[in-house]
Amino acid sequence: MNMKRYSELDTEMPIGVFDSGIGGLTVAREIMRQMPNEKIVYFGDTARVPYGSKSKETVTRYSRQIVRFLLEQKVKAIAIACNTASAYALPEIEQECPVPVIGVIRPGAKTACSCTKNGRIGVIGTRATVSSGSYTEFIHQIMPEAEVFAQACPLFVPLVEEGLWEDPVTDEIARRYMASLLDHGIDTLIMGCTHYPLIRKTIGRAAGDMISLINPAYETAMELRQMLGEMNLLADHRPALGSTVPQYRFYVSDMAEQFQQFANSIIKYGILASEKIDIYNYSGKPFSAEEGAG
Amino acid sequence: MNMKRYSELDTEMPIGVFDSGIGGLTVAREIMRQMPNEKIVYFGDTARVPYGSKSKETVTRYSRQIVRFLLEQKVKAIAIACNTASAYALPEIEQECPVPVIGVIRPGAKTACSCTKNGRIGVIGTRATVSSGSYTEFIHQIMPEAEVFAQACPLFVPLVEEGLWEDPVTDEIARRYMASLLDHGIDTLIMGCTHYPLIRKTIGRAAGDMISLINPAYETAMELRQMLGEMNLLADHRPALGSTVPQYRFYVSDMAEQFQQFANSIIKYGILASEKIDIYNYSGKPFSAEEGAG
Repeated sequence: MNMKRYSELDTEMPIGVFDSGIGGLTVAREIMRQMPNEKIVYFGDTARVPYGSKSKETVTRYSRQIVRFLLEQKVKAIAIACNTASAYALPEIEQECPVPVIGVIRPGAKTACSCTKNGRIGVIGTRATVSSGSYTEFIHQIMPEAEVFAQACPLFVPLVEEGLWEDPVTDEIARRYMASLLDHGIDTLIMGCTHYPLIRKTIGRAAGDMISLINPAYETAMELRQMLGEMNLLADHRPALGSTVPQYRFYVSDMAEQFQQFANSIIKYGILASEKIDIYNYSGKPFSAEEGAG
Repeated sequence: MNMKRYSELDTEMPIGVFDSGIGGLTVAREIMRQMPNEKIVYFGDTARVPYGSKSKETVTRYSRQIVRFLLEQKVKAIAIACNTASAYALPEIEQECPVPVIGVIRPGAKTACSCTKNGRIGVIGTRATVSSGSYTEFIHQIMPEAEVFAQACPLFVPLVEEGLWEDPVTDEIARRYMASLLDHGIDTLIMGCTHYPLIRKTIGRAAGDMISLINPAYETAMELRQMLGEMNLLADHRPALGSTVPQYRFYVSDMAEQFQQFANSIIKYGILASEKIDIYNYSGKPFSAEEGAG
């Protein structure tokens, strides 16, 4: 990390948040709740969603393109709201990027460790997040004796996106995914994909009353606030009413209209507009010394 | 179309086939069955799959990149195996491309028209294919009095990719998708997405015995053979054994290994290898007069 660069940041700059699509809005929503003074620039990569079935190389390339776009928007920090991108791309982005970056995995792992009583923690996520082993790694850094059991749940994202939030089919699929985790006697379950909190009730029914469900979005916003506080980068007042730039700006790489409909069902703050940008114009190569933290 | 350009094509050149991912292998399989002498270069856009929830503009851009890659492989013709890409990008690609191009929608529409007795035709497909209205348009060109009823089935692709080909959950989802089509009294149903023939039995159970299921892959291969025949471009002998270039070559934009596993479950010819190529190196812009049909 390059502290000299950080000195160019100021409290008035927005926070950048990105995701493969709409799921990261659950993280943006937590930032809005916990830091109502902050401005947000959100990017959803709807032209290439989903990330959860793609490779580390591809996800890292896409993430670098988005980070370049967000830096152009002069953000003071970046939250990677997507679990898959956090698992695959955070280590590189963190090294290269000239502003502080936070992912959702370490905060989720931390909360799980403070919640568990029997040291048996379950993780559900995309195939990519599970096979990256990132949650297990962070949990073991905090609690080396913990036992971690991970289960990929690839049908949850399409079921959520089809609106089957309360549906016997989603209940049935949740029961199947949960079966082996329950056999392992977990007492804590990390919802390791930003879509999953939207079907929290279904997951809760399948997991049963005795298991604590962890939503990393909440803890990620907390940790981001702490980090910005320590760097004296927290906004200390609401943006002026009537400002020409809205407090929350939403960008996508495709299907701006559909994004907006879905976004308005998740975020109650009223998303006035979302804009399609051409993400292909941004390089997916590693950051050079000049643009990066070098 | 530019006949002068076509004169540069010869019978020994391979046929290019592309899809958003793995589904188009059902079309490649039909080409292998019906034209065992032909070489095939297949491209699956696994870095950006699925196309069915994306916009016309994005799908056309991706298709142009792939066509450029296939032209570099010196194909004599291109089959767009993806319904969404056929619906959205074929009109432009057909105009611009210096080799003959075929999609899956017109062949599917033709077969449906020759099958139906009551003139009531159902179409199932991705959201994009359905909202494009392409099947309806082609059906009406052939049979203006036909009534067409379309139903998007966005959960079928993830269910197929998760391997739930014979499963009560897939049966339940199929029943829901089929309900309104059955109310309309259709006697013919086009499986307007290359994944759907893989759950033909499930779709058949939900549709009932009285409805003819149309698989456009079969008719697309037939029409391609006829077109190549008319242009004197059909290969007249099997590629020599021991040739350094395999008869069937498979390329993807991501996850080459997973592609191969799935491909081998669909195609019985033995896919020895699939290679990842960098599709971002190919332009997604319209073809210029020099490279295109001018």
